Amino acid sequence: MPPEIEPITDLSRIAIHTITTKRLLIETCFKRYAEMGFGGISVWDDGVDSAGAARVRKLVDKSGLRVPALVRGGFFVSADHAKRAAAQDLNRKRIEQARGIGAEMIVIVAGAEPGVPHAAARGQVERGVAGLLPEAERAGVKLAIEPLHPMYAADRCCINRLAEARALCDSLASPMLGVAVDVYHTWWDPDLESEIKTLGSQNRLFAFHVCDWKTDTRHLLLDRGLMGEGVIDLRGFRAMMERAGFDGMIEVEVFNEDYWALDPDAYLELIRDRVFACV
Amino acid sequence: MPPEIEPITDLSRIAIHTITTKRLLIETCFKRYAEMGFGGISVWDDGVDSAGAARVRKLVDKSGLRVPALVRGGFFVSADHAKRAAAQDLNRKRIEQARGIGAEMIVIVAGAEPGVPHAAARGQVERGVAGLLPEAERAGVKLAIEPLHPMYAADRCCINRLAEARALCDSLASPMLGVAVDVYHTWWDPDLESEIKTLGSQNRLFAFHVCDWKTDTRHLLLDRGLMGEGVIDLRGFRAMMERAGFDGMIEVEVFNEDYWALDPDAYLELIRDRVFACV
Repeated sequence: MPPEIEPITDLSRIAIHTITTKRLLIETCFKRYAEMGFGGISVWDDGVDSAGAARVRKLVDKSGLRVPALVRGGFFVSADHAKRAAAQDLNRKRIEQARGIGAEMIVIVAGAEPGVPHAAARGQVERGVAGLLPEAERAGVKLAIEPLHPMYAADRCCINRLAEARALCDSLASPMLGVAVDVYHTWWDPDLESEIKTLGSQNRLFAFHVCDWKTDTRHLLLDRGLMGEGVIDLRGFRAMMERAGFDGMIEVEVFNEDYWALDPDAYLELIRDRVFACV
Repeated sequence: MPPEIEPITDLSRIAIHTITTKRLLIETCFKRYAEMGFGGISVWDDGVDSAGAARVRKLVDKSGLRVPALVRGGFFVSADHAKRAAAQDLNRKRIEQARGIGAEMIVIVAGAEPGVPHAAARGQVERGVAGLLPEAERAGVKLAIEPLHPMYAADRCCINRLAEARALCDSLASPMLGVAVDVYHTWWDPDLESEIKTLGSQNRLFAFHVCDWKTDTRHLLLDRGLMGEGVIDLRGFRAMMERAGFDGMIEVEVFNEDYWALDPDAYLELIRDRVFACV
């Protein structure tokens, strides 16, 4: 068993992904998260696209919230060259937006497309990330590769384990390139602890996303669990991250239609209570 | 790209899992599969339990079908000692049944239980398999560890990649212990080809199960694709298996409520056509 760590007792290290409270306007997200005492906000792309980076930057400054991430970039994979070029343009725009709003990193979802074999897809991802790194470095925006659960390998993400994300980082060696570790995607991996340890020693643990894996998952995408209602040992997971040197924000990212239907204030209170109890 | 291999043009190497035509009685499965020209049948546990091993043996002898597998044993994992002991008793019964009906192997699903950490679960699996091997060896029944997709890691199977199944085989070294490779569970793994090659060199490629992975999967368990309606390069997969030395039966195993609702004869014809076209 991992050594005990102290429960979390204040929200200064906790950030909420705006997708978690999908019904709230971006302005309301900033206001409510800050009022509740959360220390950070990770802004999804739709929020920046609709409000504009300058407006979001004002919200950031006024709220005092830290912005670990703009979510998300990537989606490099396609059999169609024009689509790959369009993805690259969009990624450049995301870097500019991240710089504009003061986000520390962009979460990168590699992409996948039925019909593009995985080996070819991974090559497209590597070339895509390589092409963005110079601009990310100039902008001072980190890129965090997020491995997605293997159940998304067909059509969302061809990087499915921490080991694969680390191999990509090894290949492209840049201090601005690292990994986003999401408990939902990675908890099942027997190499989890050793991978986290290695990534920590390389200063590549850029992000830590929490939610939970429910045994009665009814939908591959929109039925994530809230912390404490699934099987993941979240406190043990945090202990692994912290032993490996991670001291960044803990980001709550839950896609779930049932929770989206709740009153957002009550939901945020529930999130706070679950962070204290489980993470 | 893998070298081209010839399409399959007769059904002598094709076996059907009885779960695939779940509505049919076991007697009807034997009759229809043989009439259609399929060379084999893999019998699910409910069929043997209801008809009895002696009766199934008569069906085997009369039909002339080969029986690659009794499906399934395992499910070793529980926090409750009494449940683990009961699983072991059931597994012994399955070995006896397999011997009785002339099945070449038992497909082993390791098991998993919420609340049992994965490291502990894998220890229970190793002890469970170790305890069965002497009886399997005496009975001349092979045990085939089937890694299940990581989306089943919480509650069905804590062995989720070929590498993990191979590690278990390495640890327990027996010529009667090997691996069942199911395209559904393993297709996404970047180590797929190298693992299959290694397993082949060790004579551990005991089984090859085919179906398909659909991008619009609506249910984690009961929405498997029929060959050709998903993303898996099945012919390329078969080429990998055969390059690694596999020359056993190709087993069709599809759990899908929509297909279960079809007329079973029409469904078996569709399976035949998809085997010829896609595998």
